[in-house]
Amino acid sequence: MERVIIDMDEVIADPMGDMINWYESNYPAKVDYGKMTGSWVKGFPEEHHSLVWDRLRAPGFFRHLTVMKDSVDVLREMNKKYEIFIVSAAMEFPNSLKDKYEWLQDHFPFFTWRQIMFCGDKRLVAGDYMIDDHTRNLVHFKGQKLLYTAAHNLSETEYRRLGSWEEAGKMFL
Amino acid sequence: MERVIIDMDEVIADPMGDMINWYESNYPAKVDYGKMTGSWVKGFPEEHHSLVWDRLRAPGFFRHLTVMKDSVDVLREMNKKYEIFIVSAAMEFPNSLKDKYEWLQDHFPFFTWRQIMFCGDKRLVAGDYMIDDHTRNLVHFKGQKLLYTAAHNLSETEYRRLGSWEEAGKMFL
Repeated sequence: MERVIIDMDEVIADPMGDMINWYESNYPAKVDYGKMTGSWVKGFPEEHHSLVWDRLRAPGFFRHLTVMKDSVDVLREMNKKYEIFIVSAAMEFPNSLKDKYEWLQDHFPFFTWRQIMFCGDKRLVAGDYMIDDHTRNLVHFKGQKLLYTAAHNLSETEYRRLGSWEEAGKMFL
Repeated sequence: MERVIIDMDEVIADPMGDMINWYESNYPAKVDYGKMTGSWVKGFPEEHHSLVWDRLRAPGFFRHLTVMKDSVDVLREMNKKYEIFIVSAAMEFPNSLKDKYEWLQDHFPFFTWRQIMFCGDKRLVAGDYMIDDHTRNLVHFKGQKLLYTAAHNLSETEYRRLGSWEEAGKMFL
């Protein structure tokens, strides 16, 4: 079986969307999508970056995120044909570890604990395909690299893209 | 730099020792080291296995374990000459994730969060050396495999062994 390494944030979970909803409901300013290159946090007004980081680091933030459209249905089928691993660079946010584990249990109950990995650096990981929204995670990977399209990576031109889970389904199934 | 993958339990932390101390202080029975082949839990009287598993799964158990002798001093020096990653198959015990992270911060503050990985299956991991007490983790590894001696692996004969961190220091430094 071919092994597919799949990221969480901005790929199957939507922390950016949650943060924007929260921010725009609580502050009069809007986020600027044009400033997100490299990191979506940069789209928030600079004086509020520390608020955004504090919320990312707080227990509970990653527990109730929206699931990316079609990801559950496509991954349920892919899980029958590929060796799937969910690999999240979560170690920067130690409070997120159990939240992410429980979120996966809720929304992707067909993945066992053996298929989950939380790390600081994805260079460690080997496989046939990697689906990720950050080029820094893809760059060292030896297999096929697929950049999952997100607001912060729109200007990247060096990687093959996946624009949706529907597209992933067509490619893998 | 060569990459060294290092396990936590029974290699730099001592959950077995903590469990035995707790058990023999609270119950009249003794553990049987002769029955530990494959898993140290098997050394506990069978009627108490579920107690042992419950304690392993409880929040806090992995937070205050004893550090293995010489591991801090040897790894502090190895960290200057090798690319070190601490990789623990912790996903079976989701309550342990934050405990293990904080334990590492306390005892091995020279490792950054980028050097920590918690997973369900170590087949994902690539590197030059792996130090682990379980042959199931070593068997798929492509680099040099080093079996860290523990009560449950004394009958293994197929792997090169490390019997102590002093010995590891002599080999790596």
